[in-house]
Amino acid sequence: MNPEITSIQMFGIKTPIIKAGDDIVQIIEASLQAADLVPVDGDIFVLAESAVGTAENRIVRLDSITPGEKALSLGEKYCIDPREMELVLQECDEIFGGVPGAALTITKGVLSPNAGIDASNAPEGYVVLLPKDPRKTSENIRMRLEQRYSCRLGVIIGDSRTQPLRLGCTGIALGVSGFVPVEDARGSFDIFGRPLRITYKAVADNLVSAAELLMGEAGERVPCVLIRGAPVKMIDESPEMPTISMEGCMYFGNVIKCRKEDFEKENR
Amino acid sequence: MNPEITSIQMFGIKTPIIKAGDDIVQIIEASLQAADLVPVDGDIFVLAESAVGTAENRIVRLDSITPGEKALSLGEKYCIDPREMELVLQECDEIFGGVPGAALTITKGVLSPNAGIDASNAPEGYVVLLPKDPRKTSENIRMRLEQRYSCRLGVIIGDSRTQPLRLGCTGIALGVSGFVPVEDARGSFDIFGRPLRITYKAVADNLVSAAELLMGEAGERVPCVLIRGAPVKMIDESPEMPTISMEGCMYFGNVIKCRKEDFEKENR
Repeated sequence: MNPEITSIQMFGIKTPIIKAGDDIVQIIEASLQAADLVPVDGDIFVLAESAVGTAENRIVRLDSITPGEKALSLGEKYCIDPREMELVLQECDEIFGGVPGAALTITKGVLSPNAGIDASNAPEGYVVLLPKDPRKTSENIRMRLEQRYSCRLGVIIGDSRTQPLRLGCTGIALGVSGFVPVEDARGSFDIFGRPLRITYKAVADNLVSAAELLMGEAGERVPCVLIRGAPVKMIDESPEMPTISMEGCMYFGNVIKCRKEDFEKENR
Repeated sequence: MNPEITSIQMFGIKTPIIKAGDDIVQIIEASLQAADLVPVDGDIFVLAESAVGTAENRIVRLDSITPGEKALSLGEKYCIDPREMELVLQECDEIFGGVPGAALTITKGVLSPNAGIDASNAPEGYVVLLPKDPRKTSENIRMRLEQRYSCRLGVIIGDSRTQPLRLGCTGIALGVSGFVPVEDARGSFDIFGRPLRITYKAVADNLVSAAELLMGEAGERVPCVLIRGAPVKMIDESPEMPTISMEGCMYFGNVIKCRKEDFEKENR
């Protein structure tokens, strides 16, 4: 192959089922060894939030939850188990609408159906909440993996999300460490040498979407994907995921800002 | 490496600048040869819509466009060149809102800012429209590449899109041929053997997002990425990209359906 060509390689890391309280770093290390894989400088690890949340003991028995009045009425409105709805209300920063099966929330700064609460891949009668602090968790995991393998790595806690008017889930980064998650291309030029109009690249989200090709949504037990050769900017930090305001968002800009008040009025 | 491990490889295919009327298949073939790459069964080609649109002569000189009354008023409202706004109105199936710089439309069945019209990567004073029929084009390109290399391939025409409340662009498939673009995982089970709640995988969109890691948005001249080893379901068809209704969409469900009427009232 021509040495000038750019290339990325991705490996799905199969692990045992991850249980509450497990040390996910130890599990990754053992699974890498079983796969004869040794991380190198610039490798990015994408970890499924459900595996990370489970290891962090973020699983909740639904029977232990007593839904309040608001959870009962919203649960009925959106066809969601009122106990799960109670957890959604406890977990989310704000809630501003929904469709049957999904309450639309902002949780840990990210737009999330049902506050990211996951009933798949949890034991019967339980749900998995999002990792408590995905940014901090990704940092801790990166520090330990970097020390173990003596190289500079990146770590992403990733989740699945639908896109507007689109069938099927794609990837979204909840927390990252070790690289620049959104690249500002404003200093760049198009193929004709003019400044670019589309100016930001969602590198971290694209890495999670790429990883989802190997993770799947089902029982593949591939909660971790190693991505090698991605042209990302490595940094020794764990930056916040940049977001945009509702007003500046193409989808929500002139759509939701009024409806949010309606929602609050209706559901007071 | 352990033979049981799943792995995907991606190659960025650098090409000369693609000009109006070029034969994009010939260009890809020459660039593959220069890179010492030979396609094999199951390889997926992701092509940037701007390169495909340009080759298809879908470039328009803005000076040749006379904006109508509606384009003048919407152009002012959304801070868009009224000549470009006129093209947006001509190209889109419907328009139902926007923010400064982006009118929100459905175009060729897909939610698109500014009807997917691209001023970057077009000659000065020109814009590139979306390929006329991305599904048909992806099919034609697949047929020719399959014949040339005597193997079963997939082809995607991909574009960039922002996600709600998120900074930065990710990938979206406008048209596909040769594989199943959205996989229904309803027959699948989670790691505990129970049926999955999240049921669709946006395989084609994830492939485009993965490809964008190598394409970039800037002048890299990588309009084509070859993806090898992705666990997709190959078929000898060019399926329509499945979409969902506004009512069934988590983001638009109880948000836009009223506002669309408002928009139409305001902009009659």
